[in-house]
Amino acid sequence: MRAALFDVFGTVVDWRSGVSRDVAVFLARHSIGGVDPEAFADAWRRHYSPSMEEVRAGRRPFVPLDRLHFESLQATLSEFDLARRDFADADLQELNRAWHRLDPWPDAVAGLPRMKSGLIIAPLSNGNLSLLLNMAKRASIPWDAILGAEVVAAYKPAPEAYLRTASLLDLPPGEIVMVAAHNGDLAAARACGFRTAFVPRPTEHGPSQTTDLKPEQDWDFIASDFEALAQPLVG
Amino acid sequence: MRAALFDVFGTVVDWRSGVSRDVAVFLARHSIGGVDPEAFADAWRRHYSPSMEEVRAGRRPFVPLDRLHFESLQATLSEFDLARRDFADADLQELNRAWHRLDPWPDAVAGLPRMKSGLIIAPLSNGNLSLLLNMAKRASIPWDAILGAEVVAAYKPAPEAYLRTASLLDLPPGEIVMVAAHNGDLAAARACGFRTAFVPRPTEHGPSQTTDLKPEQDWDFIASDFEALAQPLVG
Repeated sequence: MRAALFDVFGTVVDWRSGVSRDVAVFLARHSIGGVDPEAFADAWRRHYSPSMEEVRAGRRPFVPLDRLHFESLQATLSEFDLARRDFADADLQELNRAWHRLDPWPDAVAGLPRMKSGLIIAPLSNGNLSLLLNMAKRASIPWDAILGAEVVAAYKPAPEAYLRTASLLDLPPGEIVMVAAHNGDLAAARACGFRTAFVPRPTEHGPSQTTDLKPEQDWDFIASDFEALAQPLVG
Repeated sequence: MRAALFDVFGTVVDWRSGVSRDVAVFLARHSIGGVDPEAFADAWRRHYSPSMEEVRAGRRPFVPLDRLHFESLQATLSEFDLARRDFADADLQELNRAWHRLDPWPDAVAGLPRMKSGLIIAPLSNGNLSLLLNMAKRASIPWDAILGAEVVAAYKPAPEAYLRTASLLDLPPGEIVMVAAHNGDLAAARACGFRTAFVPRPTEHGPSQTTDLKPEQDWDFIASDFEALAQPLVG
């Protein structure tokens, strides 16, 4: 194995805590009461897959995730009856960059340097390049490269997202392990010939999460967290 | 300033020493005498600009530098009357990857971590992604991201190479400094609105180099090496 590629939202970083934290700041600054920041974050995230599906289905040319997030933010504000408020564009752009300011799960920052000692480590995320790069600089995530949807102009789980990334690395898919907390991501990677590693993140969606609580296939590696995963990957 | 982007061949790494070292190994393995490895490296490198010019002029679709290097290697073997030798393809591919195994100038490895403490640091090189990534892993070059020609499908000094990279970083060109040992690279970057930093590499082409011995414009920063450049860039 030569490279480990990582899903990011949910797998490396805790998007729900980070986004709801910044939503709370935004609501307070605008003196808006009666909105639960975590419910707002969940609602915003519900637009995530449908927004990318427009691109995956070919109904829309590729646009970076920052732009999809911004459109989803505007839709979410409508859902919370906040669309009529006249927010400055700069304020909304600042809130949109909450997705650049997410904190890693604690074991991620501890485990990644060990994996980096023996493997190329990089995100294979649907986040755009500046999002992933700003996030990594802020949180000291030591990626060797920033890969993902924007670099290959394809959103996971489209096969092109995995196969074009392997081609950029000049590696056969079997020399790459995809690490994710989502069974669907791993199934798509496996179908492209990647090896697979599952790390559960049972509170990604909050305390009452029902999905991806456990591995749904015999993934090549299954580990409780990134520190535990480093051992079988790099010994 | 938010980001420092670096030319790589000549500016960060000493390509002539690295390539001639691997050429010498190749020649010895094949019991070929009478060929000067440095002359071979120089001849191989002479194909570099013309090979990219085919792409820049639109006469050929974008192909990664590894492929141009491989074609140039075959041409160089002809020039040294070695084309009739029946080298295995794997042997030639291995020699071609000499460009992935170049050593940094000593001050580069010392200066880059300091710059990284205050800026995004990344290559903006004509090398392809796997070349730059393998080089960085081998030599412990701590890039934050791997940018360059392959990611934006344009070879420097075409303006698209600089402007698309700024767009990927989501930064105005004026927030980016291009660092290079080549006046031509800096002139192209400046024309795109980048700030510019010149670091001379007076032995890049060997002891009798005549080009790029000194700055030819009033670049924003001029420093004797990467350690000296870190001071004005990040203080």
